[in-house]
Amino acid sequence: RRAEMASSVAGKDEVDERCQTFMAAPITPIQNLKENIRDTGSRMELLIMETQAEVCRALERADQGAKFTVDRWERAEGGGGVSCVLQDGKVFEKAGVNVSVVHGYLSEESIQQMKSRGKNLKVKDGKLPFCAMGVSSVIHPKNPHVPTIHFNYRYFEIEEADGTKQWWFGGGTDLTPTYLNQEDVVHFHQTLKEACDKHSPAFYPKFKKWCDDYFFIKHRGERRGVGGIFFDDLDSPSKEELFQFVQSCAKAVVPCYIPIVMKHKNDAFTPEEKQWQQLRRGRYVEFNLVYDRGTKFGLATPGSRIESILMSLPLTARWEYNHVPPPKSREAEILKILKDPKDWVH
Amino acid sequence: RRAEMASSVAGKDEVDERCQTFMAAPITPIQNLKENIRDTGSRMELLIMETQAEVCRALERADQGAKFTVDRWERAEGGGGVSCVLQDGKVFEKAGVNVSVVHGYLSEESIQQMKSRGKNLKVKDGKLPFCAMGVSSVIHPKNPHVPTIHFNYRYFEIEEADGTKQWWFGGGTDLTPTYLNQEDVVHFHQTLKEACDKHSPAFYPKFKKWCDDYFFIKHRGERRGVGGIFFDDLDSPSKEELFQFVQSCAKAVVPCYIPIVMKHKNDAFTPEEKQWQQLRRGRYVEFNLVYDRGTKFGLATPGSRIESILMSLPLTARWEYNHVPPPKSREAEILKILKDPKDWVH
Repeated sequence: RRAEMASSVAGKDEVDERCQTFMAAPITPIQNLKENIRDTGSRMELLIMETQAEVCRALERADQGAKFTVDRWERAEGGGGVSCVLQDGKVFEKAGVNVSVVHGYLSEESIQQMKSRGKNLKVKDGKLPFCAMGVSSVIHPKNPHVPTIHFNYRYFEIEEADGTKQWWFGGGTDLTPTYLNQEDVVHFHQTLKEACDKHSPAFYPKFKKWCDDYFFIKHRGERRGVGGIFFDDLDSPSKEELFQFVQSCAKAVVPCYIPIVMKHKNDAFTPEEKQWQQLRRGRYVEFNLVYDRGTKFGLATPGSRIESILMSLPLTARWEYNHVPPPKSREAEILKILKDPKDWVH
Repeated sequence: RRAEMASSVAGKDEVDERCQTFMAAPITPIQNLKENIRDTGSRMELLIMETQAEVCRALERADQGAKFTVDRWERAEGGGGVSCVLQDGKVFEKAGVNVSVVHGYLSEESIQQMKSRGKNLKVKDGKLPFCAMGVSSVIHPKNPHVPTIHFNYRYFEIEEADGTKQWWFGGGTDLTPTYLNQEDVVHFHQTLKEACDKHSPAFYPKFKKWCDDYFFIKHRGERRGVGGIFFDDLDSPSKEELFQFVQSCAKAVVPCYIPIVMKHKNDAFTPEEKQWQQLRRGRYVEFNLVYDRGTKFGLATPGSRIESILMSLPLTARWEYNHVPPPKSREAEILKILKDPKDWVH
């Protein structure tokens, strides 16, 4: 019994140590995290805080000294978050890495949205207590030869009227280049595939396709970028296996992206290339405001922190009427891929 | 009878003359317009084509020689339009004036949207033939002291399963300044009020409030601009009276806006003022992509011309994380008005 206690105390010390590395204190008091350290909620909160810190430090190093500003905020209705933003750095135009741990009651709009996704929710007096936590990030670099990355890993719990709990994981990592660099895209997908393959050979192909389908700008007939992985509503095989999988994905963010940043951050570019990047940023805005599920959930959740939700928007964007790139140009090349996504790793 | 015929022929010659002044040929063949010249649809099509031409010519004069490019397009599913765009002029960053005359079947999404607005529609086999026509325009000037204007006047007809026709008018004109100029806003609202008062003293107060309510960016808790008038689903007192009213509104566009352009187009401005304009353009994009009914209808209508729908987006926009203007600044002054709209004319 003494050995057991010792190990438990060691586990608790480890929580303190991990929290030291975070950008700010976690949302849930550390004492509570320690007491419930076996709950998926506590472990996920530590994972998303850790991921935020790892990504922010890696981006700061890549930007040679730029620093993230850190806002720790609370939500009147329950929970809060930590928003880290680096704006107008040397390498990054706008980089946001946001953690939120939010609880309360689902809005009617969110309940409808979940039902339309096939969830069967037993509502009592129209109320559904929920807890949602996640890390989400969009990194917009200055150089048009460095792609934009987005990632998001989240865990959701809903307590139904009869006391049963529904839970699921969602997430993904995807890349949005302004110009196609085959080698970069293969590296990106390969790194994600390796993270997936550790858990199931079925994951990468399934979540790669889901990503292509999800990041579709329907009114343009094109994808937002060259994809990656995306999944939602995952609740099998088991909570533990999925947590491990999500952890592998979160750990893959830095190795799938930072090498591409380092390779291209000093590439020369023309004003025309910068302008094409700005037009593509406009499409990014279109996807996020018209289709993105996370943005819609955020805008529909009362008391949500708008600045943290819309942190994903680029610093600047551009819309030209009827812009069509010349045939066989590098701009036409990437558009073709966005209209007709391909397999990058076999 | 000969006198009657003469008058009818004169009416037909008049159609030819009016069409001469348009930016392009109307969507409906001129012969058909002549044959059905007493139908509201024909008269409305001539009015929107005429409004487009009046506004484009006035803007070209204000821009000292810049020219609109004119795209006349057809829609495979029925109808078409004329899109006029002036991009990167001396005075205007992006000015779009679009006419569309579209017919076909309503999409399921549009039917649901109309039902949610309280329309009782008798559907047969899930199909509802409709005809929608309108002129819509957004003018984004370069100088931050010249406000953005938007206007839209439209006529809608739906044929129900039992052959009865529902019809209504919608529209409005509203102003979005980057900085508050009291005199300009009063001139703008006064001109619209005069157009309304010719038809009913109830119109201006009702449609002014509707405008403040409609152009609300809910997630920001602020309006898009300083308002104007807005109305939708109008089907009383009578088709004729409403057509006359809409005509007065359309004729008021040039006198309510062009004097403000002429007054400020050569005003000096600082880079900081330009940057504040770009941030406000970001909010404009948020409203149009997240809330605007016309944009949503367009994006949901199969075969619609995306470039004409998204012509309303500015050439450039900007999103800074957590931007808050200093207290008592001119930026804070306009924000206060956007959060708490006031009466401009009594």
